[in-house]
Amino acid sequence: MRWKCSIAYDGTQYDGWQSQPSGMTIQDFVERRLEVLFERPTRIHGSGRTDSGVHAKGQVFHFDGDWPHGSDTLIRALRIGHPDSMQIYAAEQVDEDFHARYSAIGKRYSYSFFEGYADPFETRYCWSLQNRKLDVDAMNAGAVYLLGKHDFSSFTANPHDDREDQPVKDLRRLEVIRDGPRIRLITEADGYLFRMVRSLAGCLLAVGIGKLKPDDLIDILAACKRSDSVQTAPARGLCLEKVFY
Amino acid sequence: MRWKCSIAYDGTQYDGWQSQPSGMTIQDFVERRLEVLFERPTRIHGSGRTDSGVHAKGQVFHFDGDWPHGSDTLIRALRIGHPDSMQIYAAEQVDEDFHARYSAIGKRYSYSFFEGYADPFETRYCWSLQNRKLDVDAMNAGAVYLLGKHDFSSFTANPHDDREDQPVKDLRRLEVIRDGPRIRLITEADGYLFRMVRSLAGCLLAVGIGKLKPDDLIDILAACKRSDSVQTAPARGLCLEKVFY
Repeated sequence: MRWKCSIAYDGTQYDGWQSQPSGMTIQDFVERRLEVLFERPTRIHGSGRTDSGVHAKGQVFHFDGDWPHGSDTLIRALRIGHPDSMQIYAAEQVDEDFHARYSAIGKRYSYSFFEGYADPFETRYCWSLQNRKLDVDAMNAGAVYLLGKHDFSSFTANPHDDREDQPVKDLRRLEVIRDGPRIRLITEADGYLFRMVRSLAGCLLAVGIGKLKPDDLIDILAACKRSDSVQTAPARGLCLEKVFY
Repeated sequence: MRWKCSIAYDGTQYDGWQSQPSGMTIQDFVERRLEVLFERPTRIHGSGRTDSGVHAKGQVFHFDGDWPHGSDTLIRALRIGHPDSMQIYAAEQVDEDFHARYSAIGKRYSYSFFEGYADPFETRYCWSLQNRKLDVDAMNAGAVYLLGKHDFSSFTANPHDDREDQPVKDLRRLEVIRDGPRIRLITEADGYLFRMVRSLAGCLLAVGIGKLKPDDLIDILAACKRSDSVQTAPARGLCLEKVFY
């Protein structure tokens, strides 16, 4: 019996998604809870990893386990013993051929900036820009050059990362929206290279503060190779919003 | 030279406002920072205490210290070495007769409820009501009976608390506002008894779920004595929004 679950988490204090010897990852916490519930070690499979400090509103994982009491009861049982900083809010039984990672056809991420100093209630979820101001129109003008199917090797922190099979991704959406001092980058793609969203955020920030011109992104993309023009934005601003199936 | 400062904090991990042997209070953190900055022990005076786990967006304190570099530089200097969970965002030089507590003429608090289970990004700042639903109209109908100058002894957790000189307070505003699953209680008064806002929140919750009728509040108030009808709502939903001078 295969279960598909949706989980939200505040990644601030975790060592990322993927199981680590520290035991302080999201996967470790969920698996420990499932082991209690199912009385046997139970492996979960996420849609992908999130780095240490990265958040999620819509991470998805699956696992196999016999649970005859229905999905509402499963969600209630999973709540018990979980820290406040993670919440499994949806569960449904799926076909055996569903796979949280391989069945995914795309993902939406957000990256949040804050002009000034975010207050203690927001600071864990955004990059405080202090005195820097962002030109959102310039950022959107640059973003347009990155839309579509491209080799995104210029926007990965580790070009030799063997976890990704191929560097061509279909970037379907990349837009920057301002709400007062809050500036939010939204991206949708069929897949992402290692640290790709944080690299896109860092590069668009450079456009926003005038360090790069929007059409500089044409050459940066075409280089298919990381350069100093591309900085990685801090983890805390990143959130996995939704996985599409 | 006297300084008036405004501070916001996420109270989740602190032992409240007031200095404690643990050293884990807001006052302790601020005073340690000021001691470094002014090279001598510097006592701060808050507008009032907040309990362990209670938050603030607009707590105010004052202290005396010679700082010849202006308020912007003071704010910048105070930022350094403070944890993310607290933020001094305003500072101004004031007359020597200003006192953060005794000059205050009123305070605004909010108390936040959430119907269902708040996600990891909100759960630290509200009371998750799980399956309980609130009748906001009933809560507002009850709130009206409490407005004005009354002896609020029925709404304090510790009627023998010697920290407050007198139990009569002028409750100028008490209203409940719904925004989807988020229900927010706003209150303004010239002063509050110990745990008064959390007691008002607990009592209005009882009205919201139908355990009390709105006009039951007339007798509860008139009793001038705590009874089992008044429960104290959890600290995490409470926030000191603003101090009026």
